[in-house]
Amino acid sequence: MKPEHTRVPVLPPNAHLDGDCRGVASVLARVGDKWSVFVIMQLGGGPRRFNELKRMIGGISQRMLTLTLRGLERDGLVTRTVFPTIPPRVDYELTDLGRGLSTPVKALGAWAHEHQPEIESARTRFDGRNAAE
Amino acid sequence: MKPEHTRVPVLPPNAHLDGDCRGVASVLARVGDKWSVFVIMQLGGGPRRFNELKRMIGGISQRMLTLTLRGLERDGLVTRTVFPTIPPRVDYELTDLGRGLSTPVKALGAWAHEHQPEIESARTRFDGRNAAE
Repeated sequence: MKPEHTRVPVLPPNAHLDGDCRGVASVLARVGDKWSVFVIMQLGGGPRRFNELKRMIGGISQRMLTLTLRGLERDGLVTRTVFPTIPPRVDYELTDLGRGLSTPVKALGAWAHEHQPEIESARTRFDGRNAAE
Repeated sequence: MKPEHTRVPVLPPNAHLDGDCRGVASVLARVGDKWSVFVIMQLGGGPRRFNELKRMIGGISQRMLTLTLRGLERDGLVTRTVFPTIPPRVDYELTDLGRGLSTPVKALGAWAHEHQPEIESARTRFDGRNAAE
């Protein structure tokens, strides 16, 4: 018998996500974070400085951008390069790994953008049905 | 001046995710939820009953599977069909919208699965560097 509440799901051999699902889940968590997605998409256009990114992604706080970039750097998706100018210039750039991830992330972003009205109206219908019950 | 902490990011016109980012973020949140992803992938193989899904996705509790299916149904990604047998049979199936989403989700899952060792070792290196500092 399998325990009911193990944290790591065990998928059957025919599942697409077989093998180490804990790692897969942690990558999905990164992609589920909208700030990481927006940073990855902006860096798709080439290296950017911190303040450029902050300007491009309206609504992100200094602290949240710092945390997001640090998480992406830790995952090996982004490099941080300090140029010894005065004041020091800091560039962020996608690694090859990050560029690879940006392809499926862009496809997902495009799907989300395209189908967002359908999802919105499905939600409205669902909530209306359930309120009527 | 823009407020620092608005919840909905405003991206510049050249951004891929321009337009209604709130909706896009909510779709990404769904995809960032590993249980939703696992259910979408399992239903890619055709309609399934509740208990089949529960068996296929080891480690998911009854309650979490119920909540996940309800969220997917609300988003218009999954249909729930009750057959008036005794006991009633309940089938879950991807809608056309859900099948459309499963394509980029599978690509992302495949990427995550393939590159998970690289990400793991990047994390170990990063943590080692930062512990040494």
